[in-house]
Amino acid sequence: MTDAITFATPYDDSNIFAKILRGEIPSISVFENDDCLAFMDIMPQREGHTLVIPKRPAVTFLDIEPDSLANLIKHTQIVARAVQKAMNADGFSIVQLNGSKGGQTVPHIHFHILPGSILNAGAHGAIPSDPEHLAKVAEKIRNAF
Amino acid sequence: MTDAITFATPYDDSNIFAKILRGEIPSISVFENDDCLAFMDIMPQREGHTLVIPKRPAVTFLDIEPDSLANLIKHTQIVARAVQKAMNADGFSIVQLNGSKGGQTVPHIHFHILPGSILNAGAHGAIPSDPEHLAKVAEKIRNAF
Repeated sequence: MTDAITFATPYDDSNIFAKILRGEIPSISVFENDDCLAFMDIMPQREGHTLVIPKRPAVTFLDIEPDSLANLIKHTQIVARAVQKAMNADGFSIVQLNGSKGGQTVPHIHFHILPGSILNAGAHGAIPSDPEHLAKVAEKIRNAF
Repeated sequence: MTDAITFATPYDDSNIFAKILRGEIPSISVFENDDCLAFMDIMPQREGHTLVIPKRPAVTFLDIEPDSLANLIKHTQIVARAVQKAMNADGFSIVQLNGSKGGQTVPHIHFHILPGSILNAGAHGAIPSDPEHLAKVAEKIRNAF
């Protein structure tokens, strides 16, 4: 269990994204290189809900090194282009949450790419997330790069 | 009036942020340099709701040049640090909306810095936005850089 995430939280490499990066937990990925990993949110708020994370550890938007953040957003743009194309989305939201009170649930910085608007999205887990279905969505996205 | 924003929308320099950048409409700014402007959202969803925009024209996250995007997010981090400190926020959200269907209302790319969580924020205009009050909030933020 992770305690409440604050801006003083040191990086805890037992978080689920650290485990995904180490290959200890599976993920349904759509993009990976030396710097970043992008994979399907397993509790999607919308079809195509994708997460982009840096491989270097950082908890929040305030902790990450500026150059790492710049690199992360460039990759998020690349992935968002594929998500938009694959989902034929006529709109999408980029969302990044910080601190438990900010809605952050995993203490490893991540950008959400959410087809449609976050302003009227359902809660996390609002749509089905069975692995077979997510794998099909991921394949569409991978084919859109 | 702006028509629906799509990913094919060309930049229209009559949008309100373009007018703010040209000084034709006032804004309550907290940060400005050659690249970016940060100012108070006049329809705040939370106290301290701040927008960061590039001076170079771009409509969406998919249109902006990668290096401009990288520069924009670095500035967003600088401003977010001040907003977090000034508001003593124990959490905040970074939100960037694309296309009318994505919730974008102004066709000039902008990052929202929103104290608290976007997942339970009120609608735009949920809290008072009289200029005097916003000016006081902005002063707190400017003093936190």
